[in-house]
Amino acid sequence: MKRKVTLKQIARELDVSISTVSKSLRNSPEISEDTRQKVQAFAKLYNYKPNNIALSLKNKKTKTIGIIIPEIVHHFFATVISGIEQVANENGYNVIVCLSDESFDKEVINMEMLATGSIDGFIMSLSKETQLKKDFHHIVEVINQGMPVVMFDRITNDVFCDKVIIDDQMAAYEAVEYLINKGFKKVALVTTVDYVSVGKLRTEGYLKALRDNNMMAEEDMIVKIEDIDNCSVKIERLLEEQKPDAIFAVNELFAVTCIKLAAKMGVNVPDDLSVIGFTDGIISQFSSPAITTVSQNGIKMGRSAAKMLIDRLEMEEEDEHYRTEVIETHLVERESTPTL
Amino acid sequence: MKRKVTLKQIARELDVSISTVSKSLRNSPEISEDTRQKVQAFAKLYNYKPNNIALSLKNKKTKTIGIIIPEIVHHFFATVISGIEQVANENGYNVIVCLSDESFDKEVINMEMLATGSIDGFIMSLSKETQLKKDFHHIVEVINQGMPVVMFDRITNDVFCDKVIIDDQMAAYEAVEYLINKGFKKVALVTTVDYVSVGKLRTEGYLKALRDNNMMAEEDMIVKIEDIDNCSVKIERLLEEQKPDAIFAVNELFAVTCIKLAAKMGVNVPDDLSVIGFTDGIISQFSSPAITTVSQNGIKMGRSAAKMLIDRLEMEEEDEHYRTEVIETHLVERESTPTL
Repeated sequence: MKRKVTLKQIARELDVSISTVSKSLRNSPEISEDTRQKVQAFAKLYNYKPNNIALSLKNKKTKTIGIIIPEIVHHFFATVISGIEQVANENGYNVIVCLSDESFDKEVINMEMLATGSIDGFIMSLSKETQLKKDFHHIVEVINQGMPVVMFDRITNDVFCDKVIIDDQMAAYEAVEYLINKGFKKVALVTTVDYVSVGKLRTEGYLKALRDNNMMAEEDMIVKIEDIDNCSVKIERLLEEQKPDAIFAVNELFAVTCIKLAAKMGVNVPDDLSVIGFTDGIISQFSSPAITTVSQNGIKMGRSAAKMLIDRLEMEEEDEHYRTEVIETHLVERESTPTL
Repeated sequence: MKRKVTLKQIARELDVSISTVSKSLRNSPEISEDTRQKVQAFAKLYNYKPNNIALSLKNKKTKTIGIIIPEIVHHFFATVISGIEQVANENGYNVIVCLSDESFDKEVINMEMLATGSIDGFIMSLSKETQLKKDFHHIVEVINQGMPVVMFDRITNDVFCDKVIIDDQMAAYEAVEYLINKGFKKVALVTTVDYVSVGKLRTEGYLKALRDNNMMAEEDMIVKIEDIDNCSVKIERLLEEQKPDAIFAVNELFAVTCIKLAAKMGVNVPDDLSVIGFTDGIISQFSSPAITTVSQNGIKMGRSAAKMLIDRLEMEEEDEHYRTEVIETHLVERESTPTL
């Protein structure tokens, strides 16, 4: 049985990155002449055919939307998919979901796979690694060939396409100001490393809220987490050494971890410490105490993304103007902040 | 632009079900001659080509696994997908996920879409509606054409293929016996309607545990839920009228709903009422009190399903023997049952 050689196999065989193979096959000037020739010769030998989207687009519509998300065990992404499904079904479209597992290579491979005739357009949220590398050639390529892409949540300004976001900075600003208005003086931040776009924006919102309220941002009050599995040490040190009276956490896993570690140290939430999270998932609803949180409205985000994509797919003429839709957020008040 | 006509469009146009169209195109004797001819003529007119899997299988391997699950906002299914992803990646396979949204028609449409050359084989869990209709022709068809299918969790004995399950009856039996051994005399059951295979098996486990311990199963102590959004009335009536001292719930949403409604009525868990759930999801972990639950081990289930599928895909010769793998469950003791 003849097997189709994959991007990954070519990369492994030639000991180069998947990105290099992908770019070489598209004659990208970023790649040396020598490498390009080597990759192309190898691909030819094994009958590898890079996808020709424009060609397949001319022939047929699949009425299928491809979604690429970083991970699936994540309530926010699951709700966005539900929103996309709703609008897709209302308009007679199917939906296919692929996971990048936060890996750049997997994102490239999945786009390559889906773009070859399986779908009409993409709705995607960038992997952490893609944001770190700032390599978006695979997305630009797909758009240049005439296949529309809508990005949501984790986006980049380096690619021109339709986008659906929340105003992460504003949402964080409002959450932190809410804490300041409650009278808290030592408001800490538990956030992601800066290359995660939404984490960075939420960090900026935190800093701005402090500034606008004449409060000093202290380095020791800001914890940047690279990996959720190893965040306990840093958060424990924050609680012990800085004794914050309030914490703004940029996602619900960070928030619930703060609450659990505080409880272990005998710090009561909300009596001794207030916590606000981000993302209104089921952890926030069912944790004890239930967590006050910024609701992102994943369903609405998904619905908007699907509408934007389908509008573009069904447009009679090409439209070079891209839109960025900003979904409203709101604070859901629960038990991890004082009621008065 | 020429659009491919879909099964759904043909069904709507001729005012018949999707299943009828699908069966007519395969010359199924279940469909009247008249209808078959009408459907086939219409399909021909619009150039509809039913997938010819056998043909595409001969030509190439896609190294892609198709997953069809009933819903995505569900921690158990998300963990199964993670398990499948792990083994797929270890073996150089991609994964595509489609949702049936508990709809038979969507399950048929998704299989039709993926089977046409996008994937090498399926891993799936049946939609509620498929279980209710007991119509599995779309799955049998795919298998007959040489594309392997592995079913997990919600399976049917009417289709011969590889399966990965937990022993739902045994797991429920052990959970209920655990409650009986703690000395509880009035153990209620909150379960699904019978056509959901796993719900039915868990109900049987409950009944068997009572029987083996010489306890009477009372109809009023068993609540069967059709729709989670409207379950509160039934559960409230159970709590008020029957005053159970323990509840076994067949999933974690039922369990957390019981706990919340009990709290509203001033019934303390675990002092006045013990609750055991099923599925070790994040609701069970973060609810208050944290819920004692039967862990299904979704990751392991996903890994096993992927191994079975890949083994079959990479087999040199066809093997007509199908295996059913039973994944072990265990009880995770938390705060919703007494510690002594």
